[in-house]
Amino acid sequence: MSLFEKHKDLLDQAMRALHERTFFAAYPEHPSPKIYGETADEEGRKRFEASLGKKFDELKQPDPQDWIGEEESPYTQEKLGVTYPSFSVENLLGKAKDAYHHWRKVGADERAGILIESLEGVRSRFFEIAYATMHTTGQGYMMAFQASGPHAADRALEAIASGYEELGRFPGKAHWDKPMGKYNIVLDKQWRAVPKGISVVIGCSTFPTWNSVPGLYASLVTGNPVIVKPHPGAVLPMAIVVAEIQKVLIENDLDPSICQLAVDSFDSMITKDLAEHPTVKLIDYTGNSAFGSYLEALEGKVVFTEKTGVNSAILDSAQDIDKVAANLAFSVALYSGQMCTAPQNFYIPSGGVITPGGKVSFDEFAQKLVDNINGLVDNPKAGPFVLGTIQNKNTGDRISNAANLGGKVWLASRSIENPMFKNARIATPVVIELDASQKDKFSTELFGPIVLLIKTKDTDESIALAQEMAMEHGAISCGAYTTDDTVKEKIADEMALAATPVSFNLVGGIYMNQNAGFSDFHVTGGNPAGNASFTNPEYVVKRFTWVGHREPAVQA
Amino acid sequence: MSLFEKHKDLLDQAMRALHERTFFAAYPEHPSPKIYGETADEEGRKRFEASLGKKFDELKQPDPQDWIGEEESPYTQEKLGVTYPSFSVENLLGKAKDAYHHWRKVGADERAGILIESLEGVRSRFFEIAYATMHTTGQGYMMAFQASGPHAADRALEAIASGYEELGRFPGKAHWDKPMGKYNIVLDKQWRAVPKGISVVIGCSTFPTWNSVPGLYASLVTGNPVIVKPHPGAVLPMAIVVAEIQKVLIENDLDPSICQLAVDSFDSMITKDLAEHPTVKLIDYTGNSAFGSYLEALEGKVVFTEKTGVNSAILDSAQDIDKVAANLAFSVALYSGQMCTAPQNFYIPSGGVITPGGKVSFDEFAQKLVDNINGLVDNPKAGPFVLGTIQNKNTGDRISNAANLGGKVWLASRSIENPMFKNARIATPVVIELDASQKDKFSTELFGPIVLLIKTKDTDESIALAQEMAMEHGAISCGAYTTDDTVKEKIADEMALAATPVSFNLVGGIYMNQNAGFSDFHVTGGNPAGNASFTNPEYVVKRFTWVGHREPAVQA
Repeated sequence: MSLFEKHKDLLDQAMRALHERTFFAAYPEHPSPKIYGETADEEGRKRFEASLGKKFDELKQPDPQDWIGEEESPYTQEKLGVTYPSFSVENLLGKAKDAYHHWRKVGADERAGILIESLEGVRSRFFEIAYATMHTTGQGYMMAFQASGPHAADRALEAIASGYEELGRFPGKAHWDKPMGKYNIVLDKQWRAVPKGISVVIGCSTFPTWNSVPGLYASLVTGNPVIVKPHPGAVLPMAIVVAEIQKVLIENDLDPSICQLAVDSFDSMITKDLAEHPTVKLIDYTGNSAFGSYLEALEGKVVFTEKTGVNSAILDSAQDIDKVAANLAFSVALYSGQMCTAPQNFYIPSGGVITPGGKVSFDEFAQKLVDNINGLVDNPKAGPFVLGTIQNKNTGDRISNAANLGGKVWLASRSIENPMFKNARIATPVVIELDASQKDKFSTELFGPIVLLIKTKDTDESIALAQEMAMEHGAISCGAYTTDDTVKEKIADEMALAATPVSFNLVGGIYMNQNAGFSDFHVTGGNPAGNASFTNPEYVVKRFTWVGHREPAVQA
Repeated sequence: MSLFEKHKDLLDQAMRALHERTFFAAYPEHPSPKIYGETADEEGRKRFEASLGKKFDELKQPDPQDWIGEEESPYTQEKLGVTYPSFSVENLLGKAKDAYHHWRKVGADERAGILIESLEGVRSRFFEIAYATMHTTGQGYMMAFQASGPHAADRALEAIASGYEELGRFPGKAHWDKPMGKYNIVLDKQWRAVPKGISVVIGCSTFPTWNSVPGLYASLVTGNPVIVKPHPGAVLPMAIVVAEIQKVLIENDLDPSICQLAVDSFDSMITKDLAEHPTVKLIDYTGNSAFGSYLEALEGKVVFTEKTGVNSAILDSAQDIDKVAANLAFSVALYSGQMCTAPQNFYIPSGGVITPGGKVSFDEFAQKLVDNINGLVDNPKAGPFVLGTIQNKNTGDRISNAANLGGKVWLASRSIENPMFKNARIATPVVIELDASQKDKFSTELFGPIVLLIKTKDTDESIALAQEMAMEHGAISCGAYTTDDTVKEKIADEMALAATPVSFNLVGGIYMNQNAGFSDFHVTGGNPAGNASFTNPEYVVKRFTWVGHREPAVQA
């Protein structure tokens, strides 16, 4: 049985799910022993620990020019000591060019089968990847497992399904028979989906697999060789993914250079050299806006970016304001606000928020939010695990400086103790009040657990500001609370014009930060937060070119 | 019955045809009295003639700041004297902005119905449009009818069908029910296809409707208002199309500014002002490469271009070399080589072309081509009608200068008489021999009836040069003649890598210049000849943004 046949049912399910957009997940998100095996967690942890201080020797990339690695755990603030083979840009591109001509000739069925098989390999290492993610990104255990493991694998499968569907969108061949009156012109036509060429996937330090595998698998399924360039601070999770892909390639007698890992160091980044090279045709990127905009402006490249944005929460009216405060407190605490979907700007009318029990004033809501944040972070069974750690010192500095923004500090950032990691880099959320007139202070992303409570004239001003921020500075998510259908439609319409998805009235165990594969598009491509949207058709169709040839049909 | 219901069958047929890619045409290409009515041709001609020297008063664009028009017939070399209402860029954009918010709220069904209805109106004026096209582009009557009439309408319908399909690709709503173990998280989700915004369609002087209606209808069906900016030398054909669209909009109580005509003059072009304006989000363009590349580089725009290219004909081997020479002679004579799909560079091995009767030498083939061109242009029943005229003086100058390129002149350009138009601007094809080493001379598009016969070492060099030209300078078509399956696959593969469709072994009444709606993608987006491809999914999905909103489901 071919790998395509082996995985065809899953591929079909995934293609169906793409269009139904109801709940679908191929990889269970709960790290349950019943699902993944009684010893899976411990084995994964041990495997991660065994890799520390050693060469990562799983890659099928021989003869490196060096072994390098600079990862540091935000939990211990110590080096992981894992080193990876490094290569010159020319060496990587030379191998990718050869691989291109092998991989593009492998059929779509076989490519899809191979790629889903590689996800099976990744699945067997979800726990190891989880620990690798914890100790590079600083995420809490649960998020590290879910985001880097099953959720990332679902997003990868989604990209495979989307690409596979597009490759089959037009026929390989057709018989074109045109009546001309006295005779017919009959042509045999054929269409080829020609992959664009070498693809470079540039990772980030906070979601190393979740943000990288969609582009990686989208490029691969459409026939492009990929060079994965992880953030030097978060290499290991993607190294494992690349190793699993290379393993399946070799098992199928294919060139492992179809997917290469390109590791660099903080003071000698190779990203620009890769991106600017004329043989590189596709770039996927997650990271800061300045570099993302530089990439988007490169001539002759197809570039997919996820950059930064200013996400808003609009408070108009609510059925239960305490549940709202609890939900939003969790949203800002989750991984210490280091999610591209976390809310930053809270727009609250100066007249307060309408509730069944009367108006809740701006100050009352602010206090409720503060109380909920404190309650969460000071709960030793929740706080350390929800917050995780601060991935890097720059974010730590940004949090410290936030208190100097000029507004009233409703809640100062502080540290709490993580019972397992005494040296963990922790900073709890800071909450600051600003006025709608202080636009210069809230018109930029302050990445990290920084909450700005912005006092507006009314909800119309809140909506206008949220829309303006999204249109001018980008936005990936928006939370809104309203019990008024007219206001709701106004928010839905105005934010849709700013290409920002809105989560309305979320309370309980679902948060505006969360984003589900096969249902929620991630980023929309419609505002400055990025031009990618996984996984919509544009995300895959731009990775190949339809070329049609034709010739007179041979008469039977 | 709604317009959607009225046209639903045709829309369904068109969507099916998009994917089957077998022969389909909604609008008959033959100007037959049996199809279009006994008096249709004469009435169309009279209506065209009646418009000369007058204000074109059909547009629903009141209060112009001026009436302008500079069209000149290449057949008479006299001004048409038709004037059109002109408006400031700010005026046009202000009206388009208002229209955006009306049009985007009209459902996809209704938009599709309205747009197909407008094509019915265009159909009723195919002959008038044909004469308007003749006397602006200089095309022969048959081409003017077919290209500006039925073929353009088919391309427009194709764009409507493609856009309509993409708008329905994801559900408007879904119920997302996620099992969480002890409870479920249930969300109501909805997706909106948000049109990008104001669209500007920039026309060219040679195919004013065929090259403009795909972008026009693709933008309109996806909810964007469109400003049509025709070439000042070829306004009337698109003015009629815009008038027909506005007519249907008004009949349906919609703002006619959803589709506006923006006429300018040669010495006061408004194209840059329109294109650079921040409210313009979509640009479709056909024309020269320099301006196209400038447009592509504009930040924050979705730009679709069809620029110039260097199209090749590769001669390797042939069953019947005389039929090949006849076919290619027609290809270069058709509308005097002023088609973006016409061949320019003929690569012929120095050792000759293999045929069943032995090798046909380079010189023998050159002479056959020359003889066929002369035979065609000197046939009074064919020559003037196939050649049409030279659209503008620049092309005429280019043809004159070609003789000075430096190679042997196999055939000099000359004029012939058009029995109906004594002043017609006519230039027959010029044929020049160059060596493969003279790359600087054949690496650029020489728009017009200019044929370069390039002597190569062998077919491998021919293929390499054709590929290089396409990759470096763009190509929209390629002709190839070979009876060897290995060579054929090599050409197919190498030219596919250069994103160039190949027509193999065409003889008889089908030519590499010709391109069929619903079957041949036009331009591929994969080489410098342009980033558009109508109508592939990318051509429509980039015109809107998928935005998803969600909220907790109301419990039943």
